[in-house]
Amino acid sequence: MMNDDLIARFSSIVGAENALTRDEDIAPHLLEPRAKFSGSSPLVLKPGSTQDVATILKLATETGTAIVPQGGNTGLVGGQMPSGEVVVSLGRMNRIRHVDDADNCITLEAGVTLQSAQEAAKAKGLMFPLWIASQGTCQVGGNLATNAGGINVLAYGNTRDLCLGLEVVLPSGEIWNGLKSLRKDNTGYDLKHLFIGSEGTLGIITAASMKLLPAPTDKATVFAAIADPQSALDLLSLAKRMGGGAVAAFEIMPRAGVEMSFKHADCRDPLEAPSDWYVLFELAGYDEMGSMDKKATEMLGVAFEEGIVTDATLAASTQAAQDLWHIREAMSEVQRLEGGSIKHDISVPVSKVPAFLNLAITAVKEMIPGCRPVPFGHIGDGNIHFNISQPVGADKDAFLAQWGNINERVHGIVRDFGGSISAEHGIGTLKRDELAVFKQPVELAMMHGIKKLLDPNGIMNPGKVL
Amino acid sequence: MMNDDLIARFSSIVGAENALTRDEDIAPHLLEPRAKFSGSSPLVLKPGSTQDVATILKLATETGTAIVPQGGNTGLVGGQMPSGEVVVSLGRMNRIRHVDDADNCITLEAGVTLQSAQEAAKAKGLMFPLWIASQGTCQVGGNLATNAGGINVLAYGNTRDLCLGLEVVLPSGEIWNGLKSLRKDNTGYDLKHLFIGSEGTLGIITAASMKLLPAPTDKATVFAAIADPQSALDLLSLAKRMGGGAVAAFEIMPRAGVEMSFKHADCRDPLEAPSDWYVLFELAGYDEMGSMDKKATEMLGVAFEEGIVTDATLAASTQAAQDLWHIREAMSEVQRLEGGSIKHDISVPVSKVPAFLNLAITAVKEMIPGCRPVPFGHIGDGNIHFNISQPVGADKDAFLAQWGNINERVHGIVRDFGGSISAEHGIGTLKRDELAVFKQPVELAMMHGIKKLLDPNGIMNPGKVL
Repeated sequence: MMNDDLIARFSSIVGAENALTRDEDIAPHLLEPRAKFSGSSPLVLKPGSTQDVATILKLATETGTAIVPQGGNTGLVGGQMPSGEVVVSLGRMNRIRHVDDADNCITLEAGVTLQSAQEAAKAKGLMFPLWIASQGTCQVGGNLATNAGGINVLAYGNTRDLCLGLEVVLPSGEIWNGLKSLRKDNTGYDLKHLFIGSEGTLGIITAASMKLLPAPTDKATVFAAIADPQSALDLLSLAKRMGGGAVAAFEIMPRAGVEMSFKHADCRDPLEAPSDWYVLFELAGYDEMGSMDKKATEMLGVAFEEGIVTDATLAASTQAAQDLWHIREAMSEVQRLEGGSIKHDISVPVSKVPAFLNLAITAVKEMIPGCRPVPFGHIGDGNIHFNISQPVGADKDAFLAQWGNINERVHGIVRDFGGSISAEHGIGTLKRDELAVFKQPVELAMMHGIKKLLDPNGIMNPGKVL
Repeated sequence: MMNDDLIARFSSIVGAENALTRDEDIAPHLLEPRAKFSGSSPLVLKPGSTQDVATILKLATETGTAIVPQGGNTGLVGGQMPSGEVVVSLGRMNRIRHVDDADNCITLEAGVTLQSAQEAAKAKGLMFPLWIASQGTCQVGGNLATNAGGINVLAYGNTRDLCLGLEVVLPSGEIWNGLKSLRKDNTGYDLKHLFIGSEGTLGIITAASMKLLPAPTDKATVFAAIADPQSALDLLSLAKRMGGGAVAAFEIMPRAGVEMSFKHADCRDPLEAPSDWYVLFELAGYDEMGSMDKKATEMLGVAFEEGIVTDATLAASTQAAQDLWHIREAMSEVQRLEGGSIKHDISVPVSKVPAFLNLAITAVKEMIPGCRPVPFGHIGDGNIHFNISQPVGADKDAFLAQWGNINERVHGIVRDFGGSISAEHGIGTLKRDELAVFKQPVELAMMHGIKKLLDPNGIMNPGKVL
């Protein structure tokens, strides 16, 4: 328990109005949108500047006070959730310091929402290509801390790949200004990559310099019916071969998933007959309007000829494209409306996705007869959200009690394919204990060493990742 | 000095035929091609396997023996040069373990030459896009250890960006098998990025999993005369706007440089009248043959109209394209034939290159009247090889004695632009002392901490980088 004097010392750094101590003020920071993780905290601090953050961490080090950094609180693995620690919520640090259309980069503070970053880029005719479902709420600092992925990784990389430089406050309160906007810099160890994806366990990212790209001038969106996951990969190969760098997104969905979207999310089936599997993909280019539609039509022609695709629709308008994307975007939310859902966020080598799905679907159906696998997502990156909805009419709690057993079985299959048990969501508390089993001892030892080196007093997001 | 017993113990690990102790056998490992750095060593070990490397480092740790890892020995900053240490030369570990055209990746040992990697990819219809002048000799392990760059970084990234996973032997002799071929993996700190670019100071990279790309089916190569560096950036903007992702390389050269190529390198001037500056650029795409030529012609049409380009030639054949590239590729070598050359490998934000060049050229001409600046290179990445050839007829040694003074002045200008004193060549011994001044203390402290953590006995490439 923190005493009142310590609370007062921390509060004075940010001012009373930015130091939350009343239960009703703190509450929004103690529950995330999916309600899977909840927490407790005596104090939420909302710093307004990098110097504020530095002063907070200096005091935290002096007094041995543990800190949990929090962005938009949309993380899916509990990484942002306190268990009695002080929360440092970055949302007030939401200044876009600089958008540069000569060097195609943007410098922004950690608390800028992803959507604001996208809009700032767009206003200069550029694109900030990170695209995830929570973009209206999630913040760039959190995106960096978790190395967020999303639907555009295939073409433009994940958050790590988009980062040129970081400003970080170390647990000691020292500020590292690594806010470069250089495209090449080989001067010693590349420290920014340590902090990206470290989930707030090594320091607090307060600002970043990120790459922007020219905004595509033309897009085509296709929703295609396919027989099986291998056909999705065949279509991806074809699209890459015929489209070069134009394939901007490439998502797979099963019938069970799209049906849930049709039922709950105000979507309609864009194709006449049902199909076991679907692909939703987007081409993006820089030629005149319509050239991507032409390319997509050519691709589909070959795909029909080769029997890869059984039916398909090409969005005829921006609205039609949005309607198709809505089927995919709703897919997490609609599963919630169908009862309990046991989730995985796995990756395997791209070519191994069909074999993985075959084994994993068979395994979970065997373990829980009547369960409804809804594996969907970024097949172009080998990243599948292997979710399983409860059997219709089953007891939700009894189903969810199988979470650990199902995870263990599915992750065992992932391991056999040389895959990852967390492709894009991170470790947090959800997968911490599993990580300790999954990783090689030599790798774990290096991670513990780095944690001890940069956070010797263990004040940063304790109990997360490691 | 090593005693005979210790030499024998190390030698027995790799076998007598792979343990070099005679001066004439060791000599090639003690001098690099530009002859700027030379060294000394009692023993060169040529391991044939990861296990050999592990056994060597285990013994090195036990006996406190310092080790210098060496790839193709083409590094430009002295990082691979021993000062009495045992050299571990990776050239025998040259097996390509796996080329995968389903997952577009290649797993190869550290001693594979870059050219062999390129050829292995090509044989599967794919591309390994790293392209540097030393590719016939340099090795992938060295490319990773130095995060090598080259002419294709603009489109496909540097060595770091191409790496999916590493196998590393730690100084203790422990083997970390991080050879994943996953596109996404958020399971804890990303350790591979620590080793990439660490110049052999943290461990020995023994194998890597690297991305491959579909090989472009069509290319266009253009050599264009421009008035000044700003025109190069205007042309780059235009090319990016009209060509989207098609701009694969974009290099700037001054008249002084191309004249040296014409004089010494069996090149001829492809344009009628001389120009102060030139750009050599390449478009690469996946459409039918000739589409890139069409795109390049359209671009040049606009560039002429807007006064960005004063003259240009589009290569009409593969041979013609090679001839144009030869002008650029010869540019380092021909400077050697013009006497002493003081070199820099700097980067600044791309938009700042013209301002940097203006200030830096003025400064060096003021410091050494009659000197001949030959700044050339990867302007698309903001990376300029700011080289200065001696005045015609001047004393070479007297000129080269100015190296430190010139560096200091030029790097001061680089610093004012938020740039890097080593964009792609690394630190080695050449820039080690300057790094200690250039970096923020907090960043240096983190680097020293990581060095101490992973190499507690300081046996790995001592005196390099830090």
